[in-house]
Amino acid sequence: MNRQESIKQMTGAIKADSFRMAALPLAQRNEALLNIARKLRCQSDIIFKANAEDIERAESEHQPGPLLKRLRFDSSKLEECLAGIESLIQLPDPLFKTLLKRELDKDLVLHKITCPIGVIGIIFESRPDALVQIATLCLKSGNCAILKGGSEAFKTNRTLYNVIYTACKEAGIPEGFLTLVENRADIDSLLKCGEDIDLLIPRGSNAFVRYIMDNTKIPVMGHADGICHIYVDEHFDLDKALPVIIDSKTQYVAVCNAVETLLVHERAAEKLIPPLLSKLKEKGVTVKGSPDIQHLAPCESAADEDWETEYLDLVLSVKTVQNIDEAVSHINRFGSHHTDCIITEDPAAAEKFMLIVDSAGVYLNCSTRFADGYRYGFGAEVGVSTGKLHARGPVGLEGLVTYKYRLYGKSHVVGDYASGAKQFHFKDL
Amino acid sequence: MNRQESIKQMTGAIKADSFRMAALPLAQRNEALLNIARKLRCQSDIIFKANAEDIERAESEHQPGPLLKRLRFDSSKLEECLAGIESLIQLPDPLFKTLLKRELDKDLVLHKITCPIGVIGIIFESRPDALVQIATLCLKSGNCAILKGGSEAFKTNRTLYNVIYTACKEAGIPEGFLTLVENRADIDSLLKCGEDIDLLIPRGSNAFVRYIMDNTKIPVMGHADGICHIYVDEHFDLDKALPVIIDSKTQYVAVCNAVETLLVHERAAEKLIPPLLSKLKEKGVTVKGSPDIQHLAPCESAADEDWETEYLDLVLSVKTVQNIDEAVSHINRFGSHHTDCIITEDPAAAEKFMLIVDSAGVYLNCSTRFADGYRYGFGAEVGVSTGKLHARGPVGLEGLVTYKYRLYGKSHVVGDYASGAKQFHFKDL
Repeated sequence: MNRQESIKQMTGAIKADSFRMAALPLAQRNEALLNIARKLRCQSDIIFKANAEDIERAESEHQPGPLLKRLRFDSSKLEECLAGIESLIQLPDPLFKTLLKRELDKDLVLHKITCPIGVIGIIFESRPDALVQIATLCLKSGNCAILKGGSEAFKTNRTLYNVIYTACKEAGIPEGFLTLVENRADIDSLLKCGEDIDLLIPRGSNAFVRYIMDNTKIPVMGHADGICHIYVDEHFDLDKALPVIIDSKTQYVAVCNAVETLLVHERAAEKLIPPLLSKLKEKGVTVKGSPDIQHLAPCESAADEDWETEYLDLVLSVKTVQNIDEAVSHINRFGSHHTDCIITEDPAAAEKFMLIVDSAGVYLNCSTRFADGYRYGFGAEVGVSTGKLHARGPVGLEGLVTYKYRLYGKSHVVGDYASGAKQFHFKDL
Repeated sequence: MNRQESIKQMTGAIKADSFRMAALPLAQRNEALLNIARKLRCQSDIIFKANAEDIERAESEHQPGPLLKRLRFDSSKLEECLAGIESLIQLPDPLFKTLLKRELDKDLVLHKITCPIGVIGIIFESRPDALVQIATLCLKSGNCAILKGGSEAFKTNRTLYNVIYTACKEAGIPEGFLTLVENRADIDSLLKCGEDIDLLIPRGSNAFVRYIMDNTKIPVMGHADGICHIYVDEHFDLDKALPVIIDSKTQYVAVCNAVETLLVHERAAEKLIPPLLSKLKEKGVTVKGSPDIQHLAPCESAADEDWETEYLDLVLSVKTVQNIDEAVSHINRFGSHHTDCIITEDPAAAEKFMLIVDSAGVYLNCSTRFADGYRYGFGAEVGVSTGKLHARGPVGLEGLVTYKYRLYGKSHVVGDYASGAKQFHFKDL
């Protein structure tokens, strides 16, 4: 059997188990979550040891500082994971929720009830705590998860996986619930398993996410670029604008919700640009401005490609616009439909911006960095979606379920309604 | 400019108008719906004349009877359309609905609010009334629609389109709201306009829908096959089973929700098969049975490919299974996740079936033919989805909207929460 066949066989078996996952009662899923927390605590020494080995290897390979930081899984990361599991246990069941209950006719009742999506493939970056978060979110929502982690965290991921897998098996969860794929080459095989995998959630570099999107027929949830904008309107408060722009750009640069382009109303530029550019300079930010911006304060010159570049760095492109319409057109054209903000004291302008900007997040007078499941109070998230179907923005438990229509009858046939012998009466219960 | 470029230019302009569509108040959308109804009535003579020409051409081409029937747009079809528009006007606004309102911290409030998907491309079959239904659903939900109708209905579609387009223009709806594409070759160009088209809804033959799904990166909502099953459990009531099976197979055969395969518990077969096959024979149904079925009553012999065939005809494949688990495995493997039914008097078996069968519709003791937006009380539908993301089953207004997160702040920055200077308090309002 070649590699593709063996991966196909594996996903087929996982799919079969996914139907059993869909029937697990909440108590059993929560019991498994408790057992995971218990075992993670008991076996923390083994986990930290595996992580130390991953870090040692990464250091010897001279990996960059931010990667090393994200790779670390220490006792404070463990406590965060345990707190996350604890709050996940407290959350209400996302499954078996009745979204609609309608009597179509006497003794013919339609129920719309939430159920798991099925089998979800998640490809994630170097943070090993993501493995714990994703696995537990999938467990709570009754989904099977196929995980492919970053190779830097190889040993930590394998150790965490073993602990979680064993904890779930003890709690009677079907074995197909959690699978760890360690070979990067297997990703291409997974992309071809559309019959068995219901959803892919890739988290990583733009190029990687785009590769996944371009090479599979499986629905993909996530985002490639995060080109977020701030637009400063004609009527704005400088004291509000400065901290929001500074925070959006500098609070953490290597993330999808950092601002990349600032648009300024031409009648706001003179007041905003000189103090802003001076503050940005203090923070080490390189500004790339359109000619009129350069006229107001010293900065580099922006090229056409700057408007479609996600810097993920201390760089900000800045240009003036004639009015809010030009700003919105620019954002809808060059943005990535992730998160965009207007800074204004004019409620009508704010309302217009929020209606017309075609993004998952539209903000008034606050930092784009708030676009995050934790900050929205969703608990954990599996990722941020810039697609418009199913789930949009930060995706938590709710984005991991779908629904079924159940129809309960007593020998009802359509012929009776087609002939007029019976009529529907549609009564919501 | 070549054809692809001109289509791309067209969809770009539609996309730009879609942002204006998203801001239209309900009153204006309803006023446009009223105007459409008014004009359809006034101009009915022109519409009927165009339809008569389409029918004459189809007859001269010796098109089959069912096609001619579907093609007809007469005064009774018009009245149905007008009644549909009337009830659409009465429906509550699917837009601007607040799905969540949460105070994250003082003066920092998150709103999750419904909004249109944007630009929807719909490719539909010969029924011209579908054009009216789809256009008005898209209008009510604030979406732009690009329509490609069947060539048989060319003149009727063009006439209906002109009436609706003019009515909307008079009501101040952006021109990009409704576009009619008449050249079949343009479909391939549309499939490449992923930047401007947010969703495709193909309605037509399996092969056509699958072609669309396989040749675009745009999300597709719909279904290719409709291989629906009925499973008759060990404990069943013959008087309930017979009418449900007969109706599911024969009430209307050329549709996705007709049953194609019957599975019978081996201890139910002796009681069910002889009377059922005799009734099916009366109705002109050809039965293709597994060997043990052939043993119980005369029928044709089923081949392996019968279990994955959508007949859309008076043909039913029948086989016995050892138990409900085998039935469910068969359905999840060979079915198309559309609608599947169990006939049983055992509530535990019914519950198990409904939990584990991975289909948009799971039914107890009633005809699979109920799987339809009208019969679910949704009003009109744009199609039936067998995908699991976004909308599943019959898709009405609700499936044509998505949501945005709006965040209203007063100069809030993430740095304050990262440093611990401020804490989120998450209070649902």
